[in-house]
Amino acid sequence: MPPASSPLPLASTVLVERYKRVRAKTLDLVSGLSPEDMVVQSMPDASPAKWHLAHTSWFFEAMILSRDSDYQPVDPRFQALFNSYYEALGQRVARPDRGLMTRPSLSEVVSYRREIDRRMAARLAQSLSTIETYLFELGLNHEQQHQELLLQDALHLFSCSPLKPTVWRVEPRTAPRAFSKGGQVRFAEGLSVIGAAKNDGFAFDNEMPAQRVWLNAYALDADLVTNGDWLRFMEDGGYRNPALWLSDGWATLHQLGWDSPAYWTAGSTGWTIYTLTGEVDLDPAAPVRHVSYYEADAYARWAGARLPTEAEWEHAARHSGNAFSNLDTEVWQWTRSAYAPYAGFSPTEGTASEYNGKFMVNQMVLRGGSFATPRDHLRPTYRNFYYPSQRWAFCGLRLAHDISTTEEATCKPFEVT
Amino acid sequence: MPPASSPLPLASTVLVERYKRVRAKTLDLVSGLSPEDMVVQSMPDASPAKWHLAHTSWFFEAMILSRDSDYQPVDPRFQALFNSYYEALGQRVARPDRGLMTRPSLSEVVSYRREIDRRMAARLAQSLSTIETYLFELGLNHEQQHQELLLQDALHLFSCSPLKPTVWRVEPRTAPRAFSKGGQVRFAEGLSVIGAAKNDGFAFDNEMPAQRVWLNAYALDADLVTNGDWLRFMEDGGYRNPALWLSDGWATLHQLGWDSPAYWTAGSTGWTIYTLTGEVDLDPAAPVRHVSYYEADAYARWAGARLPTEAEWEHAARHSGNAFSNLDTEVWQWTRSAYAPYAGFSPTEGTASEYNGKFMVNQMVLRGGSFATPRDHLRPTYRNFYYPSQRWAFCGLRLAHDISTTEEATCKPFEVT
Amino acid sequence: MPPASSPLPLASTVLVERYKRVRAKTLDLVSGLSPEDMVVQSMPDASPAKWHLAHTSWFFEAMILSRDSDYQPVDPRFQALFNSYYEALGQRVARPDRGLMTRPSLSEVVSYRREIDRRMAARLAQSLSTIETYLFELGLNHEQQHQELLLQDALHLFSCSPLKPTVWRVEPRTAPRAFSKGGQVRFAEGLSVIGAAKNDGFAFDNEMPAQRVWLNAYALDADLVTNGDWLRFMEDGGYRNPALWLSDGWATLHQLGWDSPAYWTAGSTGWTIYTLTGEVDLDPAAPVRHVSYYEADAYARWAGARLPTEAEWEHAARHSGNAFSNLDTEVWQWTRSAYAPYAGFSPTEGTASEYNGKFMVNQMVLRGGSFATPRDHLRPTYRNFYYPSQRWAFCGLRLAHDISTTEEATCKPFEVT
Amino acid sequence: MPPASSPLPLASTVLVERYKRVRAKTLDLVSGLSPEDMVVQSMPDASPAKWHLAHTSWFFEAMILSRDSDYQPVDPRFQALFNSYYEALGQRVARPDRGLMTRPSLSEVVSYRREIDRRMAARLAQSLSTIETYLFELGLNHEQQHQELLLQDALHLFSCSPLKPTVWRVEPRTAPRAFSKGGQVRFAEGLSVIGAAKNDGFAFDNEMPAQRVWLNAYALDADLVTNGDWLRFMEDGGYRNPALWLSDGWATLHQLGWDSPAYWTAGSTGWTIYTLTGEVDLDPAAPVRHVSYYEADAYARWAGARLPTEAEWEHAARHSGNAFSNLDTEVWQWTRSAYAPYAGFSPTEGTASEYNGKFMVNQMVLRGGSFATPRDHLRPTYRNFYYPSQRWAFCGLRLAHDISTTEEATCKPFEVT
Repeated sequence: MPPASSPLPLASTVLVERYKRVRAKTLDLVSGLSPEDMVVQSMPDASPAKWHLAHTSWFFEAMILSRDSDYQPVDPRFQALFNSYYEALGQRVARPDRGLMTRPSLSEVVSYRREIDRRMAARLAQSLSTIETYLFELGLNHEQQHQELLLQDALHLFSCSPLKPTVWRVEPRTAPRAFSKGGQVRFAEGLSVIGAAKNDGFAFDNEMPAQRVWLNAYALDADLVTNGDWLRFMEDGGYRNPALWLSDGWATLHQLGWDSPAYWTAGSTGWTIYTLTGEVDLDPAAPVRHVSYYEADAYARWAGARLPTEAEWEHAARHSGNAFSNLDTEVWQWTRSAYAPYAGFSPTEGTASEYNGKFMVNQMVLRGGSFATPRDHLRPTYRNFYYPSQRWAFCGLRLAHDISTTEEATCKPFEVT
Repeated sequence: MPPASSPLPLASTVLVERYKRVRAKTLDLVSGLSPEDMVVQSMPDASPAKWHLAHTSWFFEAMILSRDSDYQPVDPRFQALFNSYYEALGQRVARPDRGLMTRPSLSEVVSYRREIDRRMAARLAQSLSTIETYLFELGLNHEQQHQELLLQDALHLFSCSPLKPTVWRVEPRTAPRAFSKGGQVRFAEGLSVIGAAKNDGFAFDNEMPAQRVWLNAYALDADLVTNGDWLRFMEDGGYRNPALWLSDGWATLHQLGWDSPAYWTAGSTGWTIYTLTGEVDLDPAAPVRHVSYYEADAYARWAGARLPTEAEWEHAARHSGNAFSNLDTEVWQWTRSAYAPYAGFSPTEGTASEYNGKFMVNQMVLRGGSFATPRDHLRPTYRNFYYPSQRWAFCGLRLAHDISTTEEATCKPFEVT
Repeated sequence: MPPASSPLPLASTVLVERYKRVRAKTLDLVSGLSPEDMVVQSMPDASPAKWHLAHTSWFFEAMILSRDSDYQPVDPRFQALFNSYYEALGQRVARPDRGLMTRPSLSEVVSYRREIDRRMAARLAQSLSTIETYLFELGLNHEQQHQELLLQDALHLFSCSPLKPTVWRVEPRTAPRAFSKGGQVRFAEGLSVIGAAKNDGFAFDNEMPAQRVWLNAYALDADLVTNGDWLRFMEDGGYRNPALWLSDGWATLHQLGWDSPAYWTAGSTGWTIYTLTGEVDLDPAAPVRHVSYYEADAYARWAGARLPTEAEWEHAARHSGNAFSNLDTEVWQWTRSAYAPYAGFSPTEGTASEYNGKFMVNQMVLRGGSFATPRDHLRPTYRNFYYPSQRWAFCGLRLAHDISTTEEATCKPFEVT
Repeated sequence: MPPASSPLPLASTVLVERYKRVRAKTLDLVSGLSPEDMVVQSMPDASPAKWHLAHTSWFFEAMILSRDSDYQPVDPRFQALFNSYYEALGQRVARPDRGLMTRPSLSEVVSYRREIDRRMAARLAQSLSTIETYLFELGLNHEQQHQELLLQDALHLFSCSPLKPTVWRVEPRTAPRAFSKGGQVRFAEGLSVIGAAKNDGFAFDNEMPAQRVWLNAYALDADLVTNGDWLRFMEDGGYRNPALWLSDGWATLHQLGWDSPAYWTAGSTGWTIYTLTGEVDLDPAAPVRHVSYYEADAYARWAGARLPTEAEWEHAARHSGNAFSNLDTEVWQWTRSAYAPYAGFSPTEGTASEYNGKFMVNQMVLRGGSFATPRDHLRPTYRNFYYPSQRWAFCGLRLAHDISTTEEATCKPFEVT
């Protein structure tokens, strides 16, 4: 539900600049990919890069441009081809069949993007209503989500290739990183407020409304769990000890044959990991990634700890300043919270109502962000979500601990307004 | 984790009487079933009645009797045959293969029960430690859980038979029922305490510890959703409108071909439903049952309402006296809460540690109880749980509503101590 | 298609005696099984023993008794419950659900058998038409087929039990066996006649008509392949060498994890095999059994030989006297012939028309018979058939060899009349 | 097994010309496809066009060029990427993953083809041994097989596209066709010889050796079954009558939801069919195509006829001159013969030994050829084969009939030498 009076910048020049910047970034991400790389779908969970390019353009067309009653679509056939999951918007290509669309070609899709950009520029030159302003922001945020999906999907595709190509020129570990901090950050019990309030700027419907939640005293590790930590878990038989695993997780492990995170390979000289920049030696100091919820949960049990709830995570993110290490948004962090509607949740009105709400079952919330998330797409209230068996996203974990209320809290008790 | 000082009755006569009563009830439930009826498994989710008889006996043997270091099992082969899911207790027959155990025969299993009863009586004549007292209570509660499972599993088996036999002599609707109440019960916002405290008497580990939780103002319908309500949902196209359904629910509906609750049959003269006492005409005033979470959630959305959280449900159960209709424990009630560990949860120590914790993912909590639940097995803190697609249990729903804090609350604001 | 003028004994006393003997044998076979043993279905391919008892009675009722236009079925509900696969005879319980029929009980099924026997005795006191005589013989042969199926199905069920019970008191290897013969029996090229002719006595429709077939010179091993032979194949890596396997066979091996015949277990003191009389040490001199077509074919390739065609097998059986060892009908023998209609095949008229013809694709022919086949059910034209991946029947193999026409043939060239 | 003394043209100029012509044809076939069209795999049975281009080149490299002991592969990585199923030639990409190979790019694959062509030209300038001559012919025949596969695979891919693109410029029905002949061609009983003899020119190993086979008197329809015929079958409930179907076929029909041949669409103005040249109105006079064996068999039963055996088909092709209509090689013709080794079959020696033999189970033989088969790839002994449920190839049927030996045969009895 959009805020009643929008705090968003309405001056069209600013909007257009912002739009251009986000849209250009998407094309930049595929600059190393060929048309062939961009058409193939490597698994039902993933989508082809070309589909991402087209779908994000379709989104602006379906949500904003087509609100004009006499709107003529750029190509009527694209309505079914690039609709992701909006039942209200008619027929669509089934998700596992996205990779069968060799036509329209990449160059036709790029032309489609260009035409949508032209039309959006014209549309932004006019005034936007409150709901239109919200949908415009939604479109940009939506595209930023797909930027990260595009990278993780391309990584999966290339991981299937014996040639192990390079997806993208940037990996966080290519530049030297700051050291880890060590230790825990402790929080006293109390009522906290989480979630996005009406005047906080853009947020997805699933982040709203702001709400009170009681938290017991707890602590979070200052650092994320690292590859080095994970190796110790593996060496201690972590993947062979059912006592560490949720029942569904243990079944999944056996079904899929897991014995390490995704993209790890045991070589004669040690472990390597397949990354956006290709196959590299495993860095023990880097945060572990490509682990499922089941694995993250088993690790936490092995470590005598637990995963944080999403409320604990958000409270910490809002009230701990720079207490956490700079590893913070290198990988998404699994929480122990199932993805569910907030108290008082209501879906965005209109065509965007299917955006989030209908996925609120069977998935787990991740918080934070990854190195592949655009920096202006991060916010403390953000809720990412995946099924507990999925691990092709850039997902890792941070440990949490119950603490007795008699222990001293690093962070003072806090006020709720 | 058992309470430090137990409030349970320690006088062995009382314990033995209680034990005898619970154990006799289980045998009474199968009095209408033949050895053939009791050996077959109709689906992986369900277990044969004979297995229930044996497993509940095995539980006392594995959890209590075998604590004596020189204990000799009644039959060493039964350890693997009747272990349900305890990895720490060794090999076991896979769940979908429980129906292959034609041996030991029913009469051997009944002998096994008798021998366990004899040994338990001897054991109860001695003093019980705190943990043993807890495990004894756990064994009785465990057996009561299986009493209900036995009935719902037998109902499923017989529902597959063209002969539609009778499972059991009792259905709630065989006696006249009180009228429904109508209307809502409203609750003011505030901090509430839910969960079982140490001195509250027996509770499963998943109900503990007691904890504070913030609740916004809300209302619950006084009555459960009825078959008549559900017919209106069906007539309004409820099973054909994707806008009402969670995405996973819509996929499940199509995969399994749902267009009504389980066990409903459309006949020439109206709907019938298959029940423990056989095929009967659908009673529009009876609570709907055998609906999945997906269906319950879709219904709530259709009705402009939602399912309650488990905290809302428990708060209402504790603070509303007899505000709800007597339909209250006729069917289990789906909540919108995913089954997850409570803040501060720790599993029961020792062999019972796998009892609940390892299932805390992918399932949804149900509250209340059903007509098939033993009356002394009901308590406001009780957490039942099923996968959102399962519907062979006696599960229904009650609707909840958000209310504005400016509306008057029927129930006063409440204190938390 | 029945013979135009039947050579079958028409004197009713003889018919009744024969009927009684076959029917009594079936009940004798289940004398060691409990009602629980007889109700469970261990896999979709197998059927419960109780179902076999009922279905074989239903067959007489559906094929013969119900030909009287005013016939009243013993129990109308049994028509759907015990129909195996006759589409023309109405609705039926799906094959994988046969094990869900806990009702009617075993004692009801035995009563049903008794009533069918009473009615059949009355019917046999009247004269039989040619088609009725054929259907009567068909019913007896059908029941004999199910006698063997009953044993192999019960063996599969009990093989799933950790208790490994005894199915039946007889195994061929319980008595001392004659020695193997060694060597080959050689046959000259020529035209041969295979298949059952009109006046040869009873045969299934799939054995007819008699027909000419050209055979190149060939040889058959005098003995069946033994467990000892198979061990050498295993020790030589037979289950790990793709060059020996059909492509579909290699995929099946991997999917099902085969590394030995079914029912073999590697113990610390050598291999054991699970048999009708329980778990016994593997006898190297006994014919190997419970191997699939894929395994038989791979073995033959490993041995530098091949499986015989069914025509070669039948020609040998008709023209070689006692050239083969007495191992001959201890296990069914896979041939390389796909199960297909003979030239000139036409299905039996009427309700029995679905008996064989509709299965004539995707399966391979086996010839001979096993120790579990009734002795008066064996004949040289008999065609048994299974899918190439199935191996729960008593199936083994004999090797064949191409021979040059210049080599001397043991058996003389033969005449075709 | 290659012929002992080859009748093939050894003059290198002729060989090189022939090689060039076949290789050029393959590239011509993809002239209407984009790199994107050529990388995607639409189902596990089909392969991407790019893979066909690369694999056919790899075949020459693996079978011929790499026979030189000091041979350096064009790119060592391609050995695993473009091996289809040769276990003896090392690791390979699994069949369902062929569509994940976005790299090497199409242009790299075309360069690979060019380099193989260059090397092959050099190799052909030298003398070829007998086996090399055979492998050279095998490589050309192999490429011709893939030319047809490429078209049928591309047709399947494009059939999944809502845009229904054009695969290729040629369909047989684009030019006017000769009229059908009507009637039957009749053959007397006798011994016939089928299969390829040593001196008959190139043949695959599965066509050899020539062999005698006894044939009863039979007739073949002069014409193929047409779309018009098939419509009558459909209108008569052919897809709804289990009596017409093999048991496995009936199950497949229900599983896959068949109610017409593949690629047929029922529109408001009649049936259309998707073809290489796009969606066109159904031509009732054209041979039906894209029907499975199960459908062909059901049709034949409906028509009171049967499918021919492959021996009947081949005998007719060799001995009937131009008795059949010119529809003859428009679509492949299902036979009732399971794909099995001929009497005396032995696989080609060496690396090509896996070419045919390991597929000789579970599939049915088709004879003739289709409009998409290169004209110089047709021969009367040719054996094509597919699983009975497959129908994406250009496959149809011709009916056969048993005839009494007393009826007059159109074709005289024949001699076998």
